[in-house]
Amino acid sequence: MSKDHLKIKVPATSANLGAGFDVFGIALETPYDIIEIEKSECTKIVMLGRDSRCVPTDPQRNIAGIIASIMKIPVKITIHRNIPLSSGLGSSAAPAAGVAFAINEMFALGNSREELVRIAAQGEKATSGAAHADNVAPAIYGGFVIVHQDKIISLYPENIGIVAVHPEIIVRTRQARAILPKKLSLEDISFNTGNAASMVVGMMKNDIRLIGESMANRVIEEIRSNLIKGYREVKQSAIQAGASGVTISGSGPTLIAVCRMDERDKIAIAMMRAFSEKQVKSEAFITTIGKGISVIG
Amino acid sequence: MSKDHLKIKVPATSANLGAGFDVFGIALETPYDIIEIEKSECTKIVMLGRDSRCVPTDPQRNIAGIIASIMKIPVKITIHRNIPLSSGLGSSAAPAAGVAFAINEMFALGNSREELVRIAAQGEKATSGAAHADNVAPAIYGGFVIVHQDKIISLYPENIGIVAVHPEIIVRTRQARAILPKKLSLEDISFNTGNAASMVVGMMKNDIRLIGESMANRVIEEIRSNLIKGYREVKQSAIQAGASGVTISGSGPTLIAVCRMDERDKIAIAMMRAFSEKQVKSEAFITTIGKGISVIG
Repeated sequence: MSKDHLKIKVPATSANLGAGFDVFGIALETPYDIIEIEKSECTKIVMLGRDSRCVPTDPQRNIAGIIASIMKIPVKITIHRNIPLSSGLGSSAAPAAGVAFAINEMFALGNSREELVRIAAQGEKATSGAAHADNVAPAIYGGFVIVHQDKIISLYPENIGIVAVHPEIIVRTRQARAILPKKLSLEDISFNTGNAASMVVGMMKNDIRLIGESMANRVIEEIRSNLIKGYREVKQSAIQAGASGVTISGSGPTLIAVCRMDERDKIAIAMMRAFSEKQVKSEAFITTIGKGISVIG
Repeated sequence: MSKDHLKIKVPATSANLGAGFDVFGIALETPYDIIEIEKSECTKIVMLGRDSRCVPTDPQRNIAGIIASIMKIPVKITIHRNIPLSSGLGSSAAPAAGVAFAINEMFALGNSREELVRIAAQGEKATSGAAHADNVAPAIYGGFVIVHQDKIISLYPENIGIVAVHPEIIVRTRQARAILPKKLSLEDISFNTGNAASMVVGMMKNDIRLIGESMANRVIEEIRSNLIKGYREVKQSAIQAGASGVTISGSGPTLIAVCRMDERDKIAIAMMRAFSEKQVKSEAFITTIGKGISVIG
């Protein structure tokens, strides 16, 4: 028996984690969007909350509508937005993953989580041009995910403190990708591979220090950091305040720090202050690696 | 009280494992060299066993002698060789790691394992031109290692079947490195990073299938495979016989297959037969991921 409405909570996500460019992602406990879907003759979209006026409600131009169209099921979709737009925190992945998950659940379609990731990634492709699943996969699986070809591996580290600081800077994903070099040297690749491998060990052992130390990424992070005013100072201030590592969340401009749970507040304050000293306003999310989409009604 | 002689067993090692170029390495249970050291006025080297006539005994030209010289301690070194020369199984790393370990032990120098890796890697650099520690580190630590900058992470998977088939083909490490491209594309890098990350999960979970599937490496393996006559056929025959993955050991020409312990014999036969059909003689080592250097007398 399928329901006629469903309410879910969809987490923000952070892709790359430095070393795992286009491969790693984590789900954050906060912020999150609330998405409601209801049976309907045709797909309609209602946007509420943060930045909602900046997002088109035309179903053909809205990622949530595109997902309903891919799944060939019309629904009324109400999105209570909390994840800041263009922040590097998966603000388009959340509705993509959420609507795919919710339609599958409400109509008992029986798609596996892997299939839902594929559907959601198609929606991401339609809006951003790239079908990377490193945000939609952690949104659906929760925890830390390795996205590799058609395979997704998920791990569930606990008590990993995350501080995500979102500065008021505009970084477009396309631009952040366009400035990257086309190729990297074998030496830089080995460095990044070593960090990616160490990161996985850190996630499996709940080792905050190892996770943080493994966040460094040669070339890609260095180049992208130029798009974020204050990057160097904010990173340094987070490390000085106790963070074990800092990296750009996705293509930015949000920076995430990894730390002990009890050091999050102190680190958030230090990072916001460092942005402020560069005349950049910012907001901080005090969070942790969380679970994936959950049904709340 | 330091002893006046010491006898150790030093394992063969396999670097790269496909996805972890210059980063991953494993210790093999077999083959292994036996190394004896004795106090002496000046460094002398005695080579016994396999290929021993091909290795110089002049201490300044022999890697074991070079290590003694780096550590500034003269010793008489007797090496009973079993690891085939220029095979991709760490035949120079074994005496480098072994002598560093043995001198440290016999003279109670108190070097950490990380320091011993650094010393042994210096010896590798003196003879091969490159200071990669992806063979000396697994020789010293045992298990599966991630070698990253000055940090070594070791994991100890159990019951991972390894078949190492060494064909009578000459591949020089320098040549195998010289043919590599200087750079890789971001897409190929993400593929390899995904495999490297998956490999680590496989090693932590003793997941033979995941380890095998994660061995694929784009570009580097494809290019190096051209130096190994029969590569494609041998790989295919191993997979057909039940191996979950096959890759080039170090810079080759040995190929290693990962499989269940009870399928090793069958896979070894299939691989040797495939080489034989290409008129290439080969020998197989039926082994597993083993421990590092051990003192036996």
